Amino acid sequence: MLKILVTNDDGVDAPGLGVLVEKMKKYGKVTVAAPCSPMSGVGHAITMRNPVFIEERLYDKDVVAYCCSGTPADCVKFALGNLFEGLPDLLVSGINHGSNASVNMLYSGTVAAAVEGALYGVKSIAFSSLNYNENADMSLCGYVVDEIMQNIDIHLLNQFHLLNINIPDTSLSHYNGFKICRQSMAHWKESFKEEVNNGKKAYWLTGEFICFDKEPDTDIFALENNYTSVVPVFLDLTSYKLINQLNNSLKNEKV
Amino acid sequence: MLKILVTNDDGVDAPGLGVLVEKMKKYGKVTVAAPCSPMSGVGHAITMRNPVFIEERLYDKDVVAYCCSGTPADCVKFALGNLFEGLPDLLVSGINHGSNASVNMLYSGTVAAAVEGALYGVKSIAFSSLNYNENADMSLCGYVVDEIMQNIDIHLLNQFHLLNINIPDTSLSHYNGFKICRQSMAHWKESFKEEVNNGKKAYWLTGEFICFDKEPDTDIFALENNYTSVVPVFLDLTSYKLINQLNNSLKNEKV
Repeated sequence: MLKILVTNDDGVDAPGLGVLVEKMKKYGKVTVAAPCSPMSGVGHAITMRNPVFIEERLYDKDVVAYCCSGTPADCVKFALGNLFEGLPDLLVSGINHGSNASVNMLYSGTVAAAVEGALYGVKSIAFSSLNYNENADMSLCGYVVDEIMQNIDIHLLNQFHLLNINIPDTSLSHYNGFKICRQSMAHWKESFKEEVNNGKKAYWLTGEFICFDKEPDTDIFALENNYTSVVPVFLDLTSYKLINQLNNSLKNEKV
Repeated sequence: MLKILVTNDDGVDAPGLGVLVEKMKKYGKVTVAAPCSPMSGVGHAITMRNPVFIEERLYDKDVVAYCCSGTPADCVKFALGNLFEGLPDLLVSGINHGSNASVNMLYSGTVAAAVEGALYGVKSIAFSSLNYNENADMSLCGYVVDEIMQNIDIHLLNQFHLLNINIPDTSLSHYNGFKICRQSMAHWKESFKEEVNNGKKAYWLTGEFICFDKEPDTDIFALENNYTSVVPVFLDLTSYKLINQLNNSLKNEKV
């Protein structure tokens, strides 16, 4: 029986976590370790200057949950160090309420939790839904989790690799299945709403997602066409091309 | 004259920021935007549910500093959106007090600030020193900043690319210069010191850096041999190899 760690960044009470726990029970013995409260946008933060508090409770009659005062990465570090004999066979994070496609992955606590698992060598998958509404119908999300678990060979996920999966905001009848994709290159164009708050200038972050990279092999293309995007991620961020360019430019001058 | 944005994650009062500001004045017009207080380990966190407060002050007689209540990524977003006509010509982040080599990059607010610049298409460089002590002699760090600025062609840094630079903990007389490297693959093996705090179980994170990847082309090798490591980073995290493997495995079964 697979030992499965379920985590997220929306907190232990989020509906998306519930969908993932319910589905994962079919595939193995589930343990939950998740933040006590929502942690969206914390990225790969870790808690170093304070202790992390852990509270153990029943998630449902079959599943124990460890609620953690820290970030998603903290939850995973704690769980991998303390809750299993050896390591779990699988880590699933999510289902996040909101997109982590393209460069959103870089800001995501949901993905950071899966990154943390991948660093340890645990097979790790992050799931996110493009529907931000926590009250949304999540039946497509449940369907996709089964689709992935039954079709993807998780043994291909070696250490430092993970899957970043995003589910389109559509209905089951309009859904086209999943596609293995690359990460689309994009960025956020930020603007700030200025206000004066207790005599101090305060700025609220607002932004617009700018994406010029919508080729058919990208995650953004897949999602816009009602496919689930499955992006395999490798945690070596080196630009090997730029290594060569930099070394060549150094040879051409007196160093 | 270059327009240069200087930021960090150790906060506006950190000595490492001072070294970077002082050096950068030689190369252009410097503006500082940095967190009001230390933000180590925040990764690529962004502030979404609260406003960010900004306080403007003189950093020294030539330089204005914008102190920001948020994270390093917030500082950069604010600065790029509000402080320049167009964009700055260069963003430098650091000098961080502590290593951001290898996978430490993933947890680093210093690197996240440079990532944020790279997403916008600003030439971006993160500097970190392996000496954690904020009172350490930083003369080697100052020397390295000049070495990089005078030898590296920053025009090679296209959008979505940045440099992650780490400076060894050694003296100028033992220093061997800089090397263009790849990111070493490693992970942290965490353990937790348990204590009971107000009747609640509390855990302090401690860890050990495990690195089996010390080939001569890695950043860890360079640093252990008293070289500065210069890792060019590309923000496409896709594993193209795994895309092929996953697609092949799908062809071999009935989907």
